[in-house]
Amino acid sequence: MKALVYNGPRDVSVSDVPDARIEAPTDVIVRITSTNICGSDLHMYEGRTDVEQGKTLGHENMGIVEEVGSGITRLKVGDRVSLPFNIACGHCRNCNRGKTAFCLEVNPGFAGGAFGYADMGPYQGGQAEHLRVPFADFNALRLPAGTEHELDYTMLSDIFPTGWHGTRLSGLEPGESVAVMGAGPVGLMAAMSARIQGADQVYVVDQHPDRLRLAERAGATPVDFSAGDPAEQIMEATGGVGVDRGVEAVGWQAHDHSGEEQPAGTLDTLVQVVRATGGIGVVGVFPPQDPNGPDELMQQGRLAFPFGQFFTKGLTMGTGQADVKKYNRQLRDLITQGKADPGFIVSHEMDLAQAAEGYRHFDAREDGWTKVVLHP
Amino acid sequence: MKALVYNGPRDVSVSDVPDARIEAPTDVIVRITSTNICGSDLHMYEGRTDVEQGKTLGHENMGIVEEVGSGITRLKVGDRVSLPFNIACGHCRNCNRGKTAFCLEVNPGFAGGAFGYADMGPYQGGQAEHLRVPFADFNALRLPAGTEHELDYTMLSDIFPTGWHGTRLSGLEPGESVAVMGAGPVGLMAAMSARIQGADQVYVVDQHPDRLRLAERAGATPVDFSAGDPAEQIMEATGGVGVDRGVEAVGWQAHDHSGEEQPAGTLDTLVQVVRATGGIGVVGVFPPQDPNGPDELMQQGRLAFPFGQFFTKGLTMGTGQADVKKYNRQLRDLITQGKADPGFIVSHEMDLAQAAEGYRHFDAREDGWTKVVLHP
Amino acid sequence: MKALVYNGPRDVSVSDVPDARIEAPTDVIVRITSTNICGSDLHMYEGRTDVEQGKTLGHENMGIVEEVGSGITRLKVGDRVSLPFNIACGHCRNCNRGKTAFCLEVNPGFAGGAFGYADMGPYQGGQAEHLRVPFADFNALRLPAGTEHELDYTMLSDIFPTGWHGTRLSGLEPGESVAVMGAGPVGLMAAMSARIQGADQVYVVDQHPDRLRLAERAGATPVDFSAGDPAEQIMEATGGVGVDRGVEAVGWQAHDHSGEEQPAGTLDTLVQVVRATGGIGVVGVFPPQDPNGPDELMQQGRLAFPFGQFFTKGLTMGTGQADVKKYNRQLRDLITQGKADPGFIVSHEMDLAQAAEGYRHFDAREDGWTKVVLHP
Amino acid sequence: MKALVYNGPRDVSVSDVPDARIEAPTDVIVRITSTNICGSDLHMYEGRTDVEQGKTLGHENMGIVEEVGSGITRLKVGDRVSLPFNIACGHCRNCNRGKTAFCLEVNPGFAGGAFGYADMGPYQGGQAEHLRVPFADFNALRLPAGTEHELDYTMLSDIFPTGWHGTRLSGLEPGESVAVMGAGPVGLMAAMSARIQGADQVYVVDQHPDRLRLAERAGATPVDFSAGDPAEQIMEATGGVGVDRGVEAVGWQAHDHSGEEQPAGTLDTLVQVVRATGGIGVVGVFPPQDPNGPDELMQQGRLAFPFGQFFTKGLTMGTGQADVKKYNRQLRDLITQGKADPGFIVSHEMDLAQAAEGYRHFDAREDGWTKVVLHP
Repeated sequence: MKALVYNGPRDVSVSDVPDARIEAPTDVIVRITSTNICGSDLHMYEGRTDVEQGKTLGHENMGIVEEVGSGITRLKVGDRVSLPFNIACGHCRNCNRGKTAFCLEVNPGFAGGAFGYADMGPYQGGQAEHLRVPFADFNALRLPAGTEHELDYTMLSDIFPTGWHGTRLSGLEPGESVAVMGAGPVGLMAAMSARIQGADQVYVVDQHPDRLRLAERAGATPVDFSAGDPAEQIMEATGGVGVDRGVEAVGWQAHDHSGEEQPAGTLDTLVQVVRATGGIGVVGVFPPQDPNGPDELMQQGRLAFPFGQFFTKGLTMGTGQADVKKYNRQLRDLITQGKADPGFIVSHEMDLAQAAEGYRHFDAREDGWTKVVLHP
Repeated sequence: MKALVYNGPRDVSVSDVPDARIEAPTDVIVRITSTNICGSDLHMYEGRTDVEQGKTLGHENMGIVEEVGSGITRLKVGDRVSLPFNIACGHCRNCNRGKTAFCLEVNPGFAGGAFGYADMGPYQGGQAEHLRVPFADFNALRLPAGTEHELDYTMLSDIFPTGWHGTRLSGLEPGESVAVMGAGPVGLMAAMSARIQGADQVYVVDQHPDRLRLAERAGATPVDFSAGDPAEQIMEATGGVGVDRGVEAVGWQAHDHSGEEQPAGTLDTLVQVVRATGGIGVVGVFPPQDPNGPDELMQQGRLAFPFGQFFTKGLTMGTGQADVKKYNRQLRDLITQGKADPGFIVSHEMDLAQAAEGYRHFDAREDGWTKVVLHP
Repeated sequence: MKALVYNGPRDVSVSDVPDARIEAPTDVIVRITSTNICGSDLHMYEGRTDVEQGKTLGHENMGIVEEVGSGITRLKVGDRVSLPFNIACGHCRNCNRGKTAFCLEVNPGFAGGAFGYADMGPYQGGQAEHLRVPFADFNALRLPAGTEHELDYTMLSDIFPTGWHGTRLSGLEPGESVAVMGAGPVGLMAAMSARIQGADQVYVVDQHPDRLRLAERAGATPVDFSAGDPAEQIMEATGGVGVDRGVEAVGWQAHDHSGEEQPAGTLDTLVQVVRATGGIGVVGVFPPQDPNGPDELMQQGRLAFPFGQFFTKGLTMGTGQADVKKYNRQLRDLITQGKADPGFIVSHEMDLAQAAEGYRHFDAREDGWTKVVLHP
Repeated sequence: MKALVYNGPRDVSVSDVPDARIEAPTDVIVRITSTNICGSDLHMYEGRTDVEQGKTLGHENMGIVEEVGSGITRLKVGDRVSLPFNIACGHCRNCNRGKTAFCLEVNPGFAGGAFGYADMGPYQGGQAEHLRVPFADFNALRLPAGTEHELDYTMLSDIFPTGWHGTRLSGLEPGESVAVMGAGPVGLMAAMSARIQGADQVYVVDQHPDRLRLAERAGATPVDFSAGDPAEQIMEATGGVGVDRGVEAVGWQAHDHSGEEQPAGTLDTLVQVVRATGGIGVVGVFPPQDPNGPDELMQQGRLAFPFGQFFTKGLTMGTGQADVKKYNRQLRDLITQGKADPGFIVSHEMDLAQAAEGYRHFDAREDGWTKVVLHP
């Protein structure tokens, strides 16, 4: 079958790979209908990870069940499904408590597993014609049959739940205000999630005009950090009070306006603008070490974090990859009922064959390339 | 009246000061029966704060109501009361939500207020014969009449609720395990609190033999960090699994075994030993800046925090001074019913007149001086 | 001053009564700008309670602070405030835990107190020119100065928080569905609240066309029980699945389509339509006894409740009057930010002098008389 | 193999039945080492259900894995396991949310499934030499190898989690008081659970001296309802205040002191003694109908519930069978660490061959027959 394969830094291609096949009774094979390029695919694309050559990328997958293992009881051939980016066994301690992003069994010695991802187990990705899905009765979410809402539902595998997770980690409640750092796909999803949950004010910080326009489209107030210190802008907009909650949706490769990496920059801003007793949710990625990091601290996975201010304000913080299964059922229903339309961020739809081109444009952060969906 | 007054670094004395008196209709005057010296009093004693000369110290106070203002409806003369160290108005946004450690009105421009404390408002402390208590119907907790459990109830003003708060911030549930950094009074209270809440294993890290013995008395497993890396010891004791929760009860002046200040040391240990999806509660104090701090980061109130590992494990963190009122009623009832005996940590009872001596011994961390209670 | 006084069953009049005045240092006097007639005022109006003759009615009050007691520190003369219908002391066990509808001190021997209400203490109501507000720093909610959003803010004293409370008691989460029994003012507020919180489907059951139209205006699907069994209608609309949550917003005087009182009717419907593991919130009033009730059970305050089905489905239930203070701050902010417009239910604005007429029309449930606001 | 078979009312026998065998790839076969007789087995034994003749009873099972299906990845032959009485698929909507007592797939058309139980699916029970366990990787809880704590761990399949669930449904927090209706095995487990969770007072109501003695052994205050109205006794013991929480652990066959069935009797008591704003957890069984019930209401599954008092006090209620998996891991750890010893209630251990005799004595509620454990 055809699949997008990683060959080395900034070198991916659509190649012939062995067909996906049932390897365990609890597997299914899904024919992919939509698979997105994610911002975190770019970490691998750019060579900042140790992902192995020849790996098929793609962890934002949806499609149609084509074959089921002998131990499958719930899924049927023909079911339209969304596949969380996390692969989870469904029966370990963490899975039992809903923490499916930290499954203890799918990736021995580590908590968590994912499709097509560096250091997340031997699982191939879904930027391909077919995908093998382990523990599929547990992992797959059934969708309404047909082709409706394809661009909305395809956001259920990762970024809509991830943005939502950011707001939940922050402790957001209806009638509260929130600042979101980053208007990339995850930040935009966090902003939309906050609005759905009844936030009364949502600020989104970025510097790219196309993204700031989408933030406005999502119902948020855009804050352009190229126009001045974002903390000052938010404090002014809130009459000096600050916001109740903050969401970090950028990660350690955050840049300041001059283009320099400032790994602690977004957290610094949040600790300044979130008011005493408030909360911060972190869904942007911070790795345990980064040998190529901009300073010695970050190379060890450390940040010069303003802990004293954080403590004095009595803030809370929740972190980590999203447990997609915890949210995707309710988010699917919001889409089905017309209350959420996450597909609004899609800028480009492409054939799988054009995937390499999609990576190139998206990696260059060309204006208007906010989200690419591939259709095999 | 007599009161313990701060004269300058390592210089306190019991002197005559103006009598405490009703200044507002919602005040009461309490005759102090017990008032404790707190570890955080030592920050002021040692001159590491900008507390003003002449201030009466003491924020762990209990006694008998002696006079009530005209707006008082609940308290009566003769009531035995415990006074939370936080002074709170009871009607601001934060007080309404139970966050009485972050009252917005008692200390304009800052969230929070306290008796006899640097930077926490103009309120005198209770290491004195009498104490003026603002918003007293809201702040005072009534105790059973008499003199029973005096040494237990006197822990309700600060350290028992603070230790309890640490466990709640960590998200501890029955049947879970917890590591507590520090076997000072707050750490010991956290350990006892964890046991009361049904923790199945409690580890307490310290190096002072007298404190480690008390940790054992509180039902915990002592971990002596002078005998080896505490993270390794805890990982070994838990079969490599680690603990579910962590409580920081030391603060930024944490020392390593060689006696050097390592502000991030206790947090480093916790991020290592708390397992993925777990939580950390921080009740040890970390100031927004410390001009005399051991390194440039700490001088700015920053720590070289292992954020990458923290994020990758999906940990949560709660911080801040305890909202004493949120817990003291239930903790009082546990004492009254014989389910908690926090007074076990008291090593010395002294007359108020001897208070300066008490400070000297306690500040020197002399063996066996774990907690001093003054009786005016 | 002028006030609406209860003279006897279906007999109220605007009369001269003694001026409201400061009686305790923690009181304020408020000049009323808006005061609503509530459905529960009709219980008193109709003579189904033992409210005393000569009592001034009115528990949905807002206005301008005109005079403050000597113990008041937060409120200032001229502040625009909303007054929760519950009167609460702010310092008892229940108030401390946010359960201000169950204050233990304002009405000795009973948990709770209210303005102008039968069996809720000696407090006069606010359908008057002025109102004495006890414990005013605690009870009053400050509003933005001016006259904007008057009809929205006036819903903060009772029905908007009460409807919101119903959804919270039910355990509603975003992406869930809910059935609301009753499209009176409280049911409509519950429907709007559910929408703001991200419910994906909201059903509202009633039989009055004017109210069902407003339910649609609030974003809900109206279910007309005069057109058939509402449980069957909801099961059909949800494909046999039922709803996640239910809110009871009618109370014990619920009528079936033939006009007969069926005190258990609305709960019966909810137990049928809420799916296993779901939850029900009850904010419609059920009294501890009703000597004039339609059957012997209800006379004793009992219902023939389908407990077996309730247990077998593993349902939960939360009940009771709303703790207005728990919600009114965030709801105020939603109004201020344009995210909620509860004033949409107001059908009539009248001068206080016309209040008796307002009672008469509203009590007759004349078509289109959904909510009356009086302006003294 | 040998198994305890239901032949008809009060007629059970140990007979030869077909061997348990793997029927699906996700099954395992467990060799039973301990299986308890449950109070709810007596409902079937007494002929008050429509359980089919020839069914093997037994839903409180533990043992050793003897054979695993091809789709099993976690369990290994030789693992010592506890089996929750609920059978759950692990991948439906309710299982995903931890509500494994309400699985939507193991018993089509109904929420829930169980081993050896009337109306809970086609699954044989474990009062037998071997047991087939469906979805075993999900359902089985691994225990420490060996034979230690056998009588404690065997309580993990049902009654310890069920008693614990009762306290959780009631909303119990440390430092609160609780009344438990019934000192049968579940009530005793609720009492022990409350103590572990830090309750400050626990009252247990029953009339059997042997059970009341065990309640005392569990750390509770026994209340003998044959000596007077239990509500009055509890109100007196609490100084007229009542308790914070209540647990119903009897069910609809509750008897008054004269021996008459009073289905609403225990709930009546709880609504009286639980104080305003408190909560009630119901784990005693109330069926959707009972054709042989003592009155017309109960025949329809209804109770004359004191709803008016319940509402006026603003009480909450949680109900339903325990989701055993939600708790059994942490309860296992409490046993392993020596913090819980639920085996204290075992009065008799018998060989499987003697099971019929065990049923006879237990059903007669002979003095001292509190809990029977069978060892095949």
